[in-house]
Amino acid sequence: MKIIPFDEVAAKFPVIFFDSYGVLRNHRGPIPNAIQTVERLMEAGKHVRVLTNNAARSPQAAADRMAEYGLHCIGEDKIITSGATTRHFLEQKVKRGKVAYLGTAASAEYIIGAGLEAIPISAVDIMRLDEIGAVAFLDDEGYDMNVDINLLINILRKCQVPVVVANTDLLYPTTANDVALATGSIARLAEYVLGRKFVKFGKPASQMFQMALDSVAQEFPSVCPRDILMVGDTLHTDILGGNTYGVSTALVLSGNTRPESAETEINASGIIPDFVCKSIGE
Amino acid sequence: MKIIPFDEVAAKFPVIFFDSYGVLRNHRGPIPNAIQTVERLMEAGKHVRVLTNNAARSPQAAADRMAEYGLHCIGEDKIITSGATTRHFLEQKVKRGKVAYLGTAASAEYIIGAGLEAIPISAVDIMRLDEIGAVAFLDDEGYDMNVDINLLINILRKCQVPVVVANTDLLYPTTANDVALATGSIARLAEYVLGRKFVKFGKPASQMFQMALDSVAQEFPSVCPRDILMVGDTLHTDILGGNTYGVSTALVLSGNTRPESAETEINASGIIPDFVCKSIGE
Amino acid sequence: MKIIPFDEVAAKFPVIFFDSYGVLRNHRGPIPNAIQTVERLMEAGKHVRVLTNNAARSPQAAADRMAEYGLHCIGEDKIITSGATTRHFLEQKVKRGKVAYLGTAASAEYIIGAGLEAIPISAVDIMRLDEIGAVAFLDDEGYDMNVDINLLINILRKCQVPVVVANTDLLYPTTANDVALATGSIARLAEYVLGRKFVKFGKPASQMFQMALDSVAQEFPSVCPRDILMVGDTLHTDILGGNTYGVSTALVLSGNTRPESAETEINASGIIPDFVCKSIGE
Amino acid sequence: MKIIPFDEVAAKFPVIFFDSYGVLRNHRGPIPNAIQTVERLMEAGKHVRVLTNNAARSPQAAADRMAEYGLHCIGEDKIITSGATTRHFLEQKVKRGKVAYLGTAASAEYIIGAGLEAIPISAVDIMRLDEIGAVAFLDDEGYDMNVDINLLINILRKCQVPVVVANTDLLYPTTANDVALATGSIARLAEYVLGRKFVKFGKPASQMFQMALDSVAQEFPSVCPRDILMVGDTLHTDILGGNTYGVSTALVLSGNTRPESAETEINASGIIPDFVCKSIGE
Repeated sequence: MKIIPFDEVAAKFPVIFFDSYGVLRNHRGPIPNAIQTVERLMEAGKHVRVLTNNAARSPQAAADRMAEYGLHCIGEDKIITSGATTRHFLEQKVKRGKVAYLGTAASAEYIIGAGLEAIPISAVDIMRLDEIGAVAFLDDEGYDMNVDINLLINILRKCQVPVVVANTDLLYPTTANDVALATGSIARLAEYVLGRKFVKFGKPASQMFQMALDSVAQEFPSVCPRDILMVGDTLHTDILGGNTYGVSTALVLSGNTRPESAETEINASGIIPDFVCKSIGE
Repeated sequence: MKIIPFDEVAAKFPVIFFDSYGVLRNHRGPIPNAIQTVERLMEAGKHVRVLTNNAARSPQAAADRMAEYGLHCIGEDKIITSGATTRHFLEQKVKRGKVAYLGTAASAEYIIGAGLEAIPISAVDIMRLDEIGAVAFLDDEGYDMNVDINLLINILRKCQVPVVVANTDLLYPTTANDVALATGSIARLAEYVLGRKFVKFGKPASQMFQMALDSVAQEFPSVCPRDILMVGDTLHTDILGGNTYGVSTALVLSGNTRPESAETEINASGIIPDFVCKSIGE
Repeated sequence: MKIIPFDEVAAKFPVIFFDSYGVLRNHRGPIPNAIQTVERLMEAGKHVRVLTNNAARSPQAAADRMAEYGLHCIGEDKIITSGATTRHFLEQKVKRGKVAYLGTAASAEYIIGAGLEAIPISAVDIMRLDEIGAVAFLDDEGYDMNVDINLLINILRKCQVPVVVANTDLLYPTTANDVALATGSIARLAEYVLGRKFVKFGKPASQMFQMALDSVAQEFPSVCPRDILMVGDTLHTDILGGNTYGVSTALVLSGNTRPESAETEINASGIIPDFVCKSIGE
Repeated sequence: MKIIPFDEVAAKFPVIFFDSYGVLRNHRGPIPNAIQTVERLMEAGKHVRVLTNNAARSPQAAADRMAEYGLHCIGEDKIITSGATTRHFLEQKVKRGKVAYLGTAASAEYIIGAGLEAIPISAVDIMRLDEIGAVAFLDDEGYDMNVDINLLINILRKCQVPVVVANTDLLYPTTANDVALATGSIARLAEYVLGRKFVKFGKPASQMFQMALDSVAQEFPSVCPRDILMVGDTLHTDILGGNTYGVSTALVLSGNTRPESAETEINASGIIPDFVCKSIGE
C-alpha cells in the first residue's frame, strides 16, 4: 500500500470534498496542520466542501463549531449535512401531515425547514396516527431509549408512511477509546425487527454527493465527477460513497481507519480508495 | 392449507413439546380449553414439556405463573427455559471470572446457578476487564438502555470473551396490539455494530430440544425425535427449530401467526409445519 | 389501497420515467394500450425516458427491440440502461488496464465504449493479474457457470481492483411462470463468499435516475425531481429507487407485483409508492 | 494469543473430535505427524471421531480415502459426515415422495439410505411436482450449473416441501491457492433469491455434534460435552459449532486459518477457541 503526501494528491483536483470528523478534526481538536492545508487549498482557488453525516446540527451550527476549532474558512455555505439531504427529501415527497421524529429539538429544524410540522415520537397520539405523514430518525439524543424505541416500533407497525433515516452511521467516537450508538444503528434495529427498508441519507448514499456537486456548480458550472476528490477516514461511508458516485477517493489514516490495519481492511472490504494518505496535514 | 383438530394430531405422538405464550396462554389468560387439553394428554400418559424462550424467570417461577393461569399440571420439572440452556453452557465453558450481564436480578440466577459470579453491566469496572469471563444478554429489563448498551459495546470492543444470548426472540407482545423489543433484538444490534457472532440459546437453536429430550428420556428411555411433536405459534422459532432438530411440528393459529396470513407466511418463509391447527383447544 | 387511472396520475407530471419489462411490455408483447399511452404522453409534450436494468444490449439494440413491439416513439436517446451508467463509471474511475467481465460479447460493448479493453473471465491469464484494472458483472449469459464463476472468485481473491455490477436484479422472467438468475444474483453470491462489497448500478441505485434527469435537462433545463414520475412494476428497484432519489413513484400491477398481493407486499416491505395503477393502459 | 502444543491440550480430554481437511490432511497428503498423533491418542484409549462437512462420499468411502493417506486407524464407524445427519433427517421427517437433489450419484446414496427415492433435479417432471417430497442440496458436482440451478429455483417457487442442505461450507480448497464454490454457496444463493430458509446440516449446526456424541456413548456411556475436545481449522464451522454445542474447542493453524491472521480473525469474528495449536502434529 503506497502512502502519498496529501498535497500531491490534492494538486490534481479542482474540487475537494472533505469528511469532517477524523479528517479535519477529532475529539482533541483540529488534526495537525489541517487548518493550514484547507486554507492553502482555498487560496489556490480549489472549491472545497465538507460532507458530514450529521443531522444533529444545522449547517450554521456546524460552521460555528468549525470556527471554534479554528477552521474559519469553512462557512455555512460550504457544509453539506445529511440533515440537509433529508430536509430536501421531505420537501419533495411528504406533502401533508406531521413528521414524527427521534432526535433533539435542534435536529427537528430539518423537518421544520421543509415546511412541515415536527412532533417528537413521545408526543404522538396513538389514536390519531392518520395525522402522521412520515417518520424520521434524526439523532441519537433527545429521547428515552427505554420507552421511545418501543413506541416508535408500535407506531410503525400500524402506520404505512415513508420512514427516513438522516444518518446511516452505526457508531460515533465519544473519546479516544469509546464509542456510542449513532442513529443509523437504531434505524437498522427497527428495520430488522419490522422487516422493512427505510430511505437513508448520508454517505455512502449518493444524495450528499449530488447536493455537494450542485453547490459547487453554482461557482464552477462545468464541474463533473472527474474533477472531484472525496477525502475521508471511513471506508464504508466516504470511500464507498465516493467510489459509487464516480469521484476519486483518498483515504486518510487520521481517524477510523488505523495505519496498522488499513491494508487488511481495504482487502477485506473490497472498498478500494484511489489514494491513501497519512492525514491531510502530512 | 388443511386445518386439523389438535387432538387428532396429538394422538399420534407419545411426547408433546409446547411453546408457552400464544399456545398455552396469551396476555388475557389461558387459551380457551388449553388447560383441559393438557390435562387430558397427561392423563393419557403422554410426556409433556414446555419449551419457553425466557431467561427472565426460573423454571420454578415459570411454573408458579402457569399455576396462576390454572395450568397446575405443569410443574417446574416440565419446563425448559432458554435460561436453563444458557446456564448449562456457562457451566460447561466458562471456568473462571465474573459474568457481566444485561437483565434483571432474577435473570442473573441462571449465572449464579452455574456456580459463577454475576455482575450487572453497569457495575463493571472498565479498568479491570480481565476479571470478566463472559458476557450474557439475559433479559430486556433491569437496565437503562440509554447508558448500558453503549457501556456494553465499549466493553465488548476491549474484551475477548464468550458472549451468550439467552433468548433470540426479537419482539414480545405486551398487549393485544403492542410489542416490545426482546433481548434478541438488543443482542442482534450489538452483533451488527461489532461485526461479531454471539452464542445463542432458545428456539430455533437445538439445545432446548436436546435438553427437553434428555428430560423425557429419564422417564421414557427409548424416546427419539420421531416420537415428538413440537407445538408452537411462531414459524421462525418453534417450527424452524423443531424441523431442524428432526421432530414433527404443529403450528397453532392462536398466537403470532394469524389465520388469515398463515398460508402466505408459510410459503414466504419456507418453514413448513407438518400440521396446522386452530389452537390446542380446538 | 386506492387504484387510480394512469392518465390521471401522469397528468400531474411534465416528465415520466418508465421501467420497460412489466410496464411497457412483457413476454407476450406490449402491455395492452401501452403504445397508445406513451404516444399520447409524448404528443402532449411530456418528456419520456425508459430506465432499464440491462447491460445485455446497447441503447440502440434496446430501441430496436422496442420498435419490434410497436414502440417506435422510444428512440435510443430516450433509453437509459444500467450498462450506460456502468460505462460512465468505468470511464471516470478506471484509468488503465483490461476489464475482465462475465457476460456476452454484446454486453462488453459498454467496456469498449469507455475506451477500455474488455477480456472475458475465461481468457484472463492468471499469471498476469496485474494487467487487470477492473472486473465487471455484465450479463447472465455468455459464459459457463460451471467453470467461470470459480475462476472469477479465484481472480478476485488475488486481485485488488474495483468490481462493478451492471445490474442488481436477482431474477428475470423467462416465460409467464418461470424465471432465471440474473447478473445481480451471481454478483451477490460472489460478494457473500468473498466478504466484499461491489459497486452496483441499475435501479434502485441513484445513478440511472441522475443520468435520466441529466438527459431530460438538455431539452427542459429547469427540470427537478419534483417534476418527475417514475413508473415501475417492482417495489425493490423502481419504487425504492424513485423514492430514495426523491421523485414521485407509481406502481403498476401489470408485471412483478400482482394485484392480489400488492397491498401485502407494500406493507411488508415498507416501500410505499405515491400512486398505484392497474397498468399504464388502464 | 498463546500457542499450546497439541498433545498438552489433548491430554485433558477423553474424547477428541477432529475435522478432516486442514486438520488431518490437506491437498498434499496427511499433515506432518498427524497419523502418529491420532494413533497415539487411540492407543491411549481416547475416543476419536472425525466430523466432516461432506455429503459427496459415504462414511465408507471417506474411510477408504483416509486409509489412502495412511490414516488406517479411522474406520467407517468413526466418521460422521454431514450427509449422515441429512439422511437421518430425511428418515425422520420425509415420509413420502421422491427427493429431488443437486449432486453426484454417490451423494444420492444418503437419500436412498433413508429409504426414499432419489431423483436428480434435471429429471424432475415439472408437470408432476406433487410427487416431490423434499429437495436436497448434496454436492457441488454432478449437475450443470448453467441449467439445473434455474430449474431448481423454478421448482422451489412452485413446490412447498422441506429443503435440506447437506453441507453449509461456502468454499473448498482445490489446490494450495485456489478454491471452488461448495454446496453451501449454491444453497445460500437459492435462499437469497427465493427469500426462504432451508434446513442446514454440517458444522456449525448441532446435529453432527449430537450424532458424534451418540456414537461415542455406545462405547463410553457416561460421556458428556465436558469430556469432548473439537479440533478444527475453521472458526465459523468447527469452533463456532463446538462452542455452541458446549464442548471445548481447539483451533489448529494448519488449514483455513493462517498463523499470521489468526488473532485478527478471532477478534473480528468473536468466535473464541479455548485453545490454539500450530497443528495436531506439533
